[in-house]
Amino acid sequence: MTAGFFSSRWVARPDGVTELDGGLPRGFRAAGAAAGLKRDGALDVGLLVSDGERTTSAARFTRSGVVAAPVQLCRERCDLGHLRAVAVNAGNANAATGVPGFESAGATQIAASRLTGIDPAGVAVGSTGVIGVQLPVDRVLSGLEAARELLRPDGDRDFAAAIQTTDAFEKRAALQVRLPSGAVRLSAQCKGAGMISPNFATMLCFVQTDAALDPATADLLLGVTVKRSFDRISVDGQLSTNDTAILMCSGESGVEVAPESPDELALGEALDALLRQLALLIVKDGEGSKRVGRVVVRGGDGETVERAARAVANSPLVKAALHGGDPNWGRIAQAVGGVLLDVPVELDIAIEGVPVCEAGGVRPYDEQALAQAVTKAEVEYAIGLNDGEPRAETEVFFSDLSHEYVSINADYRT
Amino acid sequence: MTAGFFSSRWVARPDGVTELDGGLPRGFRAAGAAAGLKRDGALDVGLLVSDGERTTSAARFTRSGVVAAPVQLCRERCDLGHLRAVAVNAGNANAATGVPGFESAGATQIAASRLTGIDPAGVAVGSTGVIGVQLPVDRVLSGLEAARELLRPDGDRDFAAAIQTTDAFEKRAALQVRLPSGAVRLSAQCKGAGMISPNFATMLCFVQTDAALDPATADLLLGVTVKRSFDRISVDGQLSTNDTAILMCSGESGVEVAPESPDELALGEALDALLRQLALLIVKDGEGSKRVGRVVVRGGDGETVERAARAVANSPLVKAALHGGDPNWGRIAQAVGGVLLDVPVELDIAIEGVPVCEAGGVRPYDEQALAQAVTKAEVEYAIGLNDGEPRAETEVFFSDLSHEYVSINADYRT
Repeated sequence: MTAGFFSSRWVARPDGVTELDGGLPRGFRAAGAAAGLKRDGALDVGLLVSDGERTTSAARFTRSGVVAAPVQLCRERCDLGHLRAVAVNAGNANAATGVPGFESAGATQIAASRLTGIDPAGVAVGSTGVIGVQLPVDRVLSGLEAARELLRPDGDRDFAAAIQTTDAFEKRAALQVRLPSGAVRLSAQCKGAGMISPNFATMLCFVQTDAALDPATADLLLGVTVKRSFDRISVDGQLSTNDTAILMCSGESGVEVAPESPDELALGEALDALLRQLALLIVKDGEGSKRVGRVVVRGGDGETVERAARAVANSPLVKAALHGGDPNWGRIAQAVGGVLLDVPVELDIAIEGVPVCEAGGVRPYDEQALAQAVTKAEVEYAIGLNDGEPRAETEVFFSDLSHEYVSINADYRT
Repeated sequence: MTAGFFSSRWVARPDGVTELDGGLPRGFRAAGAAAGLKRDGALDVGLLVSDGERTTSAARFTRSGVVAAPVQLCRERCDLGHLRAVAVNAGNANAATGVPGFESAGATQIAASRLTGIDPAGVAVGSTGVIGVQLPVDRVLSGLEAARELLRPDGDRDFAAAIQTTDAFEKRAALQVRLPSGAVRLSAQCKGAGMISPNFATMLCFVQTDAALDPATADLLLGVTVKRSFDRISVDGQLSTNDTAILMCSGESGVEVAPESPDELALGEALDALLRQLALLIVKDGEGSKRVGRVVVRGGDGETVERAARAVANSPLVKAALHGGDPNWGRIAQAVGGVLLDVPVELDIAIEGVPVCEAGGVRPYDEQALAQAVTKAEVEYAIGLNDGEPRAETEVFFSDLSHEYVSINADYRT
């Protein structure tokens, strides 16, 4: 697993970061249990606790207007700067379930609180799975009771398994990070890829460190790194009802990470690389995905480059071409033009460093070399808008559109 | 072809409208020729002329920021209220071709002007096909010369064939319309479905009538009816570089259609039904499409219902479910929530008249009856945003997402 975790050419392992085989940072214990929510009897309820009394945390949730009950509950009833436990289930998203669903999320929180002795406001809840079906809350509570008995410092593997749905491979990492003030540990368990699956929704990511951070610093670091990772990916452009990312800091290493210190910088770099690689693994695991694309757009203001990059990343034509290993750059031009309305733009386009379009017009290039280049596992598209100042820049990582995506999302009942 | 043209349950044939077998309204002649732009030797250059000196017209073009040369030329060099000829080719979109591409479009216009004796400003040009390859303008000019010799009043079938690319069936109609002041004819030739195809772009629609309209009335009628037809469809959410719709009115019937008259109302209704049915045929012909969906969103302001409807129509998850005949309404909720950020919405959702979600929560329904309902050729989704006043309403028609779409757009080189 972790050997070779930093597998993308777009993420460098920072100096001072060592990959470990697994295990949670000091102060944390986790477990997974099988409660019958997944049809195949696999692990489907996870419990994660920090035993550190000084534990701090930060959280980010989906911005969707259709919010799952556990997300709503976390927002309303949790002290997000002082979370000490996470109770999560797969197999049911507890979304579009109305008042009964909210009550089920509340019952889950209370049960986990009693089982762990942690104040309810310190217990986050999460769900992933089918939308629009009431949560079988009795099963979740039984699963939590079982998981409570299984909590252990190397329970991260089972916890990660319990939050997965149709993921083709696990998305988990355990790192040692050398900060100027001492070594700390950093681990994460992650699942999914947006709304990639037939019935199962959600991207979930839980991150732990034994560094000591005040809640504001934890919030700042999580906010910045989520913006550069999970906010920059798209499997199918579908925002989930349940997306949740939670960073918990037990402080048990005794290494204090003060605001604006070299320690904060080093930890931030490690967290940044960790989340970017996890995000890229989600894209790579996009249903049926064969290749990962990166589109970089330069020129124009921030909103313009964002819209252009999203248009390319979410274009079914661009994604199908990426799947087929087809350097059909006309689709890039079309996708960008389609969101920059009424004002003619003169694009520069390069694929894998080969310029194919200059100031809006085709430019001679070696077709065979380009066709070869786009069959790699990672393909980069660079777009210049030539839109004068200011010259903003952004990137989006995206998966391709495959037969398997259609099969999984259309034919799974037959 | 025209027998049963009004085939969708969402378009009623207006009173006074009779379907004809083919043929152009009085004053028009058309033809198609094979000039070697399509690989299979099929018709690929079309010419349409009105012999009526009083001919008026109106036009609508793509709003894409990446505009094909012929669209740019029409905007800059045509008198759009007095078009009397259209010269169009398939097999090459003449888009992203820079200055040489613009010159090719200009040469096409001049050649068609000489061949027809119509002032260049009265000749519109159009192209559809591969983006980013220079137009083989010599072939187009040879094709126009050949077409010039073939012009005839029932040339609409060949003209329609010459503008098609990967369309699975033709999109053509010939109607008689009984106006209060007399009978007029209305015909149309249409192709494509946005950026549906591997290398071929564009929706093109050419409409003719022998009614007499002043240019402002023609423009008003075309503008209103395009908004209710081609603007309301999505195959894959991909705006083309070449979209063009042109209405030409020869006046040769002698029936004057005065502004705000009962004649204008009757002609407008006929044009509305014609364009809506053509738009639905484009959706039906979306690559690999098996079913057509209609999403109706009510509640909230105009911009909100528009965003929600587009989100559903362009969601690959919703489209895959439509393809699979799967009443997975959780995806509808997710798609709407994904574009209505940060403010919780409590949706009502009904599929084929069966309420499945009420005020954000699941509602009991007959699963088997619903599963049956969504396997029909046309499936309707009604969404209430419960967003208070104003209660705007909109609709979007969309095709499903199929294996064939992926095959055509990914694997066609292999």
